[in-house]
Amino acid sequence: MLLSTILHVSEPPFAFPLNEHQLKLRLRAQKNQIKTCTVLYTDRYTSPGKEEALELEKIATTSHFDYFEGIVRAPSKRVRYSFVLTTFEEEHIWYGEMGASYCIDEAGTFQYAYITEGNLHHVPAWLEDAVVYQIFPDRFYNGNTGNDPQPLCKWEQEIPERDSMYGGDLQGITKKMDYLKELGINTIYMTPIFESPTNHKYDTTDYFKIDEQFGEMEDLKQMIEKAHEAGIRVMLDAVFNHTGDGMRYFQEAKKDPVHSPYRDWYFFAEPTGTHSEESGVSYETFAQNVPNMPKVNTSHPAVQEFFVKVGRYWIEEAGIDAWRLDVANEVDPELWKLFRREINQLDDQVAIIGEVMHAAGPWLRGDQFDGVMNYLYREIMLEFFAKQQIGASAFVRRLNHIRMMYTDQAYAGMLQLLDSHDTERFLTSCKKYGKGWESEQTAKGRMRSAVFFQLTSPGVPMIYYGDEVGMEGETDPDCRRPMIWKEERQDAEMLALYKQLLSARQQFVSLRRGAYRDWFTDEANQVIAFRRFCEGEQAAVIINSSANEVKLYPSNPFHGMGAEEQVVDAFSRQSGKASEVLKSVVLPPYSGRIYVYNSNKH
Amino acid sequence: MLLSTILHVSEPPFAFPLNEHQLKLRLRAQKNQIKTCTVLYTDRYTSPGKEEALELEKIATTSHFDYFEGIVRAPSKRVRYSFVLTTFEEEHIWYGEMGASYCIDEAGTFQYAYITEGNLHHVPAWLEDAVVYQIFPDRFYNGNTGNDPQPLCKWEQEIPERDSMYGGDLQGITKKMDYLKELGINTIYMTPIFESPTNHKYDTTDYFKIDEQFGEMEDLKQMIEKAHEAGIRVMLDAVFNHTGDGMRYFQEAKKDPVHSPYRDWYFFAEPTGTHSEESGVSYETFAQNVPNMPKVNTSHPAVQEFFVKVGRYWIEEAGIDAWRLDVANEVDPELWKLFRREINQLDDQVAIIGEVMHAAGPWLRGDQFDGVMNYLYREIMLEFFAKQQIGASAFVRRLNHIRMMYTDQAYAGMLQLLDSHDTERFLTSCKKYGKGWESEQTAKGRMRSAVFFQLTSPGVPMIYYGDEVGMEGETDPDCRRPMIWKEERQDAEMLALYKQLLSARQQFVSLRRGAYRDWFTDEANQVIAFRRFCEGEQAAVIINSSANEVKLYPSNPFHGMGAEEQVVDAFSRQSGKASEVLKSVVLPPYSGRIYVYNSNKH
Repeated sequence: MLLSTILHVSEPPFAFPLNEHQLKLRLRAQKNQIKTCTVLYTDRYTSPGKEEALELEKIATTSHFDYFEGIVRAPSKRVRYSFVLTTFEEEHIWYGEMGASYCIDEAGTFQYAYITEGNLHHVPAWLEDAVVYQIFPDRFYNGNTGNDPQPLCKWEQEIPERDSMYGGDLQGITKKMDYLKELGINTIYMTPIFESPTNHKYDTTDYFKIDEQFGEMEDLKQMIEKAHEAGIRVMLDAVFNHTGDGMRYFQEAKKDPVHSPYRDWYFFAEPTGTHSEESGVSYETFAQNVPNMPKVNTSHPAVQEFFVKVGRYWIEEAGIDAWRLDVANEVDPELWKLFRREINQLDDQVAIIGEVMHAAGPWLRGDQFDGVMNYLYREIMLEFFAKQQIGASAFVRRLNHIRMMYTDQAYAGMLQLLDSHDTERFLTSCKKYGKGWESEQTAKGRMRSAVFFQLTSPGVPMIYYGDEVGMEGETDPDCRRPMIWKEERQDAEMLALYKQLLSARQQFVSLRRGAYRDWFTDEANQVIAFRRFCEGEQAAVIINSSANEVKLYPSNPFHGMGAEEQVVDAFSRQSGKASEVLKSVVLPPYSGRIYVYNSNKH
Repeated sequence: MLLSTILHVSEPPFAFPLNEHQLKLRLRAQKNQIKTCTVLYTDRYTSPGKEEALELEKIATTSHFDYFEGIVRAPSKRVRYSFVLTTFEEEHIWYGEMGASYCIDEAGTFQYAYITEGNLHHVPAWLEDAVVYQIFPDRFYNGNTGNDPQPLCKWEQEIPERDSMYGGDLQGITKKMDYLKELGINTIYMTPIFESPTNHKYDTTDYFKIDEQFGEMEDLKQMIEKAHEAGIRVMLDAVFNHTGDGMRYFQEAKKDPVHSPYRDWYFFAEPTGTHSEESGVSYETFAQNVPNMPKVNTSHPAVQEFFVKVGRYWIEEAGIDAWRLDVANEVDPELWKLFRREINQLDDQVAIIGEVMHAAGPWLRGDQFDGVMNYLYREIMLEFFAKQQIGASAFVRRLNHIRMMYTDQAYAGMLQLLDSHDTERFLTSCKKYGKGWESEQTAKGRMRSAVFFQLTSPGVPMIYYGDEVGMEGETDPDCRRPMIWKEERQDAEMLALYKQLLSARQQFVSLRRGAYRDWFTDEANQVIAFRRFCEGEQAAVIINSSANEVKLYPSNPFHGMGAEEQVVDAFSRQSGKASEVLKSVVLPPYSGRIYVYNSNKH
């Protein structure tokens, strides 16, 4: 029954303001059933009968649903609205907060009460243009052998064990700033650098001190200075879900659990408590029984105050541009609300990214994070490009499903990753799950297709160090091999593609900030095509992710284009009339095209 | 297509913790399609394959949907889960965060990351047992003629005009405390009492001062003392959305908009601004152009601080038990989050109720309000009892639709009102919309049936002063007539019913705190029957809202009842075996029965 498939609620991601006078409305309904979807809207205090009408646009399709969207004007900031849907059978359905009905009186209306400042999700302006490069500092570059830990593994010669140390450090990153700039990224995300006995440093022992093996405050400041000179921002990684067991507060609390003021900072087992008894650990930890990572009681007011202080400190002292927050989904949301409030007051251009590996809607309403590490995206990228478990149209549908979980602002801040320090490398997945008869070249080809999609589609692409030169690795610790710097061992073709795509993304704003629409898919040839567009610019992207050369005869994807107007090939920079350029498009295996139409020219 | 009707997201009201180790899950699906709905769940860090299974219960049905619910145990506070639905055609459907599918791999899982303190919605314990009596202080009782405003209307002799003053005051309420106690209510909600030139006082001029016409701080303290002695709590009404134009800050800002620090406390038109120009008002106001109610910029940090101070002041100085917040839906939610945090730290037993007249989910996640004034409930009550626009089963379905918008905790704190100072009186609606051939007695009968439902069903019943003695009135200002105190003018039958029902609600915990399930409806006879149950007690309620005597032969509604066990009639207090008591039930017109089974007895 069609009525039971229609869904809207007057809250994110179905209703969200873009600014104080524009409200975006989204509605979902069963696929291929709704011919038109119109919203009737007015000021909440205006009598019924004076509504304006706006027809919504179908903006995405998933396995079961079509999504419709539109932006209504809200001069008074207050909106009362309802929907009228017309089916392909010419039935009319009314929909309001009392439900969907063939009877207008039964449906009621929705109300978006008033667009306040607190309803707006302000994402720092730079984040929408960001391309993040994730660095595991011990493995990137050894810039100062004076602070090397012992014993030290040989760079590029040994496969990392769980406890290996390679000597990478902050000076190393500083020294490689030119490489990063040339690559085309504009944001560095370093996994934790604060004092800790491990190589990954997710077990912090001092939140106000840089670990000696990475350097000192001065090294960080110099690195950030050099980065900023190169137009690159710096994001630090903080772990508030747990501390290291070497943290002074934890040691004090453990020694004297009765009197220590830090007793309630952790979850020590009550005398009668049973948790973690099997392993002999008398306190709650990260995950299941990880003794060196005692779980912190992030609901405790003193703990919240402490971590907010940490958050402010590195902004004020070192001038960092963003925080990435570890295991953010297991921390009390009240801490994150306080954290955002305080950080925003200090500097509203500091971005806040959470690690939430599943549906992250509740954290992305504007009062906690600007984005999360989008592991759901990674899963779909793996399914299609690496594992070839699903076809092109299923890929597009499933990615739309994820995108429709979020508001525009939230999706703009998503870190779109292929892999990370916590996963198998994407190229390794391409190889491992590749069909038996495929060559290594096809695995690399499929990785290149994935990168093509990643660097041209919405969200903030996140590149895990070394992916751009073809690094491989099984899951942790193997995915944390030292960066390959010897050019003869680097995949030059891969690196060239990254540079080319990042350059195009930098040049064409529609590739960074443009709205996204599916264009077409070619199931047999594993071709995906989509459009990106913003004020004054439209881009059309076609990706052939198959091992075959593909010839296509696409329709004109550009709206409002005059017959004589030109499109540009973003790679070759050659231009021509759309009718000619798109008459037939030949795509070599694992390649893509980006066509851009500058509608501002005239 | 059935798959597109299934809905769950891992956030309220579909997933919400009851405490740190219990997570309630709710799923909705197309009506009458799903035979069983089972959740498979485990710790998020446990490998797939070790899930436990729990079959959910169908707990409510609306026009298009069945709702299923269950409580899963979360010993580690972390839950990963997915659903398996079996249709009546014996198809199996998997459902997780990637959607519904016949294929387990496509569906994915849901994750409730970790139950933190901040995810728990703590409603003050007393609120779940509350029955609120709303007083418009100028119209309740004149206890001190020394503070009467001039000119003064004659009590009970004049119909109120918009500006009428009658002299009701705080001492008046104190003097009528015995009446309120005898009536059986346990919470007084007074519309605003702070300084203001109007009779309704929704245009506050001093938030720290009681209006002279109502008394002084000492009068409030005495009233609260007397109330607390009688087991009655006191709720004040605060308006943070706007102030009166007589407020000092507004006057200063208006006089010197360039230099006044209060300029940004309001929304003055920019020199080029256009809003409200038609009426000549140069600032944003409540609703549309209400000059004496300038809209406050509640996003301003200083404003937020000021109102939090107001909130604390009356708790600390006068010992009030609750805040009711006017036009709460148009205030920056950041203010409410701060407000709750600060008020909770002061006293976590102070209840916070918002005025939100539409779907209020976003305000009821545990970080803002404990409940709202449930005007949607009022609409459905009107449709069935007063206007007779819908039948008994539509009434039940529509009310379920509203209940399913909210978590259990949020619904427990809902102020279930038939009317208020802002609406036509319910009895007047019963008369006005009654069919032409009906007598006044039938209108009163329908009101009594509504009251029967209101005082036996979930949420916090809110009684608008005078409804209990049969007061009438068109919408504001007529609905604000002075309280009828002369017994010969009171509706004794109505008053007796209120007392009887409030006494039963007080005696039987299941009527206050019990879970709700539909039992049956009799469409032809306009009969509604439902069950309430909690640990140790079950109640079954039958309401005949028709003008006819009805004879029913209901099935036994009590679970786990032994053949020899007794049920009690909550009114007559007579008991008997269920098989006998329920063999046939005769209900006079507009009457109801409450049967209670105390399963704790043995």
